[in-house]
Amino acid sequence: MTSSKLAVVAGAGGALGPALGIALGNAGFRTVGISRELPPKGFDDHVSADLADTRAAENAFSTILSRHGTPSVLIYNAHRFLIETFENTSPDDFEAVWRTDTLGAFVAAKTLLPSMLEEGGTVLFSGATASTRGSARFSAFASAKFALRGLAQSLAREYGPQGIHVAHIVIDGLIDGGYAQQLYDVPSADCISPEALAREYLNLIQQPRSVWSHEIDIRPFNGKF
Amino acid sequence: MTSSKLAVVAGAGGALGPALGIALGNAGFRTVGISRELPPKGFDDHVSADLADTRAAENAFSTILSRHGTPSVLIYNAHRFLIETFENTSPDDFEAVWRTDTLGAFVAAKTLLPSMLEEGGTVLFSGATASTRGSARFSAFASAKFALRGLAQSLAREYGPQGIHVAHIVIDGLIDGGYAQQLYDVPSADCISPEALAREYLNLIQQPRSVWSHEIDIRPFNGKF
Amino acid sequence: MTSSKLAVVAGAGGALGPALGIALGNAGFRTVGISRELPPKGFDDHVSADLADTRAAENAFSTILSRHGTPSVLIYNAHRFLIETFENTSPDDFEAVWRTDTLGAFVAAKTLLPSMLEEGGTVLFSGATASTRGSARFSAFASAKFALRGLAQSLAREYGPQGIHVAHIVIDGLIDGGYAQQLYDVPSADCISPEALAREYLNLIQQPRSVWSHEIDIRPFNGKF
Amino acid sequence: MTSSKLAVVAGAGGALGPALGIALGNAGFRTVGISRELPPKGFDDHVSADLADTRAAENAFSTILSRHGTPSVLIYNAHRFLIETFENTSPDDFEAVWRTDTLGAFVAAKTLLPSMLEEGGTVLFSGATASTRGSARFSAFASAKFALRGLAQSLAREYGPQGIHVAHIVIDGLIDGGYAQQLYDVPSADCISPEALAREYLNLIQQPRSVWSHEIDIRPFNGKF
Repeated sequence: MTSSKLAVVAGAGGALGPALGIALGNAGFRTVGISRELPPKGFDDHVSADLADTRAAENAFSTILSRHGTPSVLIYNAHRFLIETFENTSPDDFEAVWRTDTLGAFVAAKTLLPSMLEEGGTVLFSGATASTRGSARFSAFASAKFALRGLAQSLAREYGPQGIHVAHIVIDGLIDGGYAQQLYDVPSADCISPEALAREYLNLIQQPRSVWSHEIDIRPFNGKF
Repeated sequence: MTSSKLAVVAGAGGALGPALGIALGNAGFRTVGISRELPPKGFDDHVSADLADTRAAENAFSTILSRHGTPSVLIYNAHRFLIETFENTSPDDFEAVWRTDTLGAFVAAKTLLPSMLEEGGTVLFSGATASTRGSARFSAFASAKFALRGLAQSLAREYGPQGIHVAHIVIDGLIDGGYAQQLYDVPSADCISPEALAREYLNLIQQPRSVWSHEIDIRPFNGKF
Repeated sequence: MTSSKLAVVAGAGGALGPALGIALGNAGFRTVGISRELPPKGFDDHVSADLADTRAAENAFSTILSRHGTPSVLIYNAHRFLIETFENTSPDDFEAVWRTDTLGAFVAAKTLLPSMLEEGGTVLFSGATASTRGSARFSAFASAKFALRGLAQSLAREYGPQGIHVAHIVIDGLIDGGYAQQLYDVPSADCISPEALAREYLNLIQQPRSVWSHEIDIRPFNGKF
Repeated sequence: MTSSKLAVVAGAGGALGPALGIALGNAGFRTVGISRELPPKGFDDHVSADLADTRAAENAFSTILSRHGTPSVLIYNAHRFLIETFENTSPDDFEAVWRTDTLGAFVAAKTLLPSMLEEGGTVLFSGATASTRGSARFSAFASAKFALRGLAQSLAREYGPQGIHVAHIVIDGLIDGGYAQQLYDVPSADCISPEALAREYLNLIQQPRSVWSHEIDIRPFNGKF
């Protein structure tokens, strides 16, 4: 273990994950990414796990603790996306989305947050448009993202006074190069730059404790809201 | 099956459940209550099920459909309450609260809502203070109640135009005679009357479709908010 | 003065005003309407005033107090509507909208609320879609309606424990027969029935103090939200 | 006029005003402060005006335009604070608070925003705890701050797609060295650092247009919320 601080990004793939790894690395953090499949780009180390699986998630975070020590930063960015009519959403779908989007975040915080109390640190949760608005065809995704927001608020109020900065980023738009952007074929000019978004995460991490934000929204200049 | 309309209350025990059964019965509904243990008072019929168990929940709702036909009203009032530090909340606790408070509601709507489309109807979800505010020691309960609210919004936007009135009641206080009131030993005068609260549910059910409310809050006159 | 209770409706014209007068009258209230021009239909008595003019408003409410005694119910339903680009909205426009939509409500509560403390009562404020969402071309109207909502929350928290029920109705749609409906030529079937809406106001007035709502939303079943 | 960009801070006094001037200056902006009385520290130029007075406000902003050209940044930070029972708040008080806190912001945007369209720019509004919560004894202040928030949302939705970044900062705590901190005698360690807060304003100004925030909250780590 070196003297540089450790940042853990759960959900290190996709478009935002690697951008977070690179931004954190440039800011002097050692970085560990967790993703389901291929090693994500931009991280110093990588652990593979399906965060929807509680035991696998616990193992992944414990491995990081024993290998790298206590993190200063935890970013929970894993999500399973689903746009589907209620009629075509099964209880298993509903549960699968929640397991990745919410329960995984609980397990991540559960495993890492206690050890972070000694030195203080930052826990960031990636939200979405659906975090504050439940739309048609979003019953599973909105429910899970609302749940994540409720968890984030509880943790902020419980741990803020103990020196852990908990914040929730409402990503209200499509990330350029991400899964949804490709799905919808939206022009890059109408999307969120993952590199610029990663800098906003970094800004939250660097906020002095007298000016902590708990919730910020992010969208492109021409995004409807 | 008679010509009177059918109302199903999932979570028919506690203090509010029986009051809902009685109010609905007085308004001319045939009533079926679902609860985990003893037959709840105030209902015409009763099905016993642990709504946290998806298969058991599906069976309970299917039994009601075959025994009584399509309901006009579904009220999801089941909840598992938990006030506990994050440190003392296990992933199993977190999941158990969500299974009862959120997944059970999804399964209830999933099983009954499609059959309700032909005649139209009302689906009501019981929320709580924690539905819009995640406080310290509420990580599990707030997350589950936020999740229920996200589900309610999605269903309202997806099914409202099809004639299903979906509403969410933010019960921002303790119900007189309920579990939490007994736990905290709060005087009845500072609590919500279950009979009066049931009449507010009935008011939502009776709203003509030109004046549907999606969300109302309810608290005692001297309740802090 | 008779023994029946008094209800004052400020903003007694348009489509909703008369419906409120009739619903309150049917519920046994003596009713006084305030409007700018013609005597509104459906009220027992009428006072003419431009509520944007503080002195005129104070005079109107004082006249009612001396003529009819202390009201049990105050409904502030007056509004000046404006949909206009920011570029074409002058400071005078911005102020005129606020004077009718917000300051008039403050003066109404200021003049009547203190006398209502002895017996208790209800104060209702008519909100709009713009009460919780500031859209393009709504800079004046949204700002004034947000301001009214802030006032309503403050009064609810200050006077609720003293027995005054303060509530805010978010009317999220066009009222059938109202100014905006005629302006946009929206079919009645897509509008809010003023009679049905008036019954929801009455329901708020009749809520026992153990189940007070502070904010409810109202929209047609097929209204987008 | 030099080639550096211009930033205008309305409400340049108090604790935050000078910190904004210094932060903007350090970031390369020419800075003009507007305040009622003494020239605020930390600005390149100063115009004195009572922003509650529409004509005076218009004159002040026009003077800046003619003296310094089109600004890139407008920060509306002027406010009149009032904590007072509703009973002791007069209509004149209510209006005075709104004139400074809301109408002045409208006039500022009205005078400067059109000229900013050509090059694009940023308009920031300083909010408060009372921007999203109307508490007892805050009828005037909460109403005015809600009104400002409604204005900010409308402008964001109207001008965002035209290249003007409009954001609202919910300052949920006392600023160290500010009026309210002195009034309540709160220890500095429990307050918001004005220098750190100014850096968060600067971060909003520097957000690339693919990652604009519309609303952020700011509070000390131990602030209740």
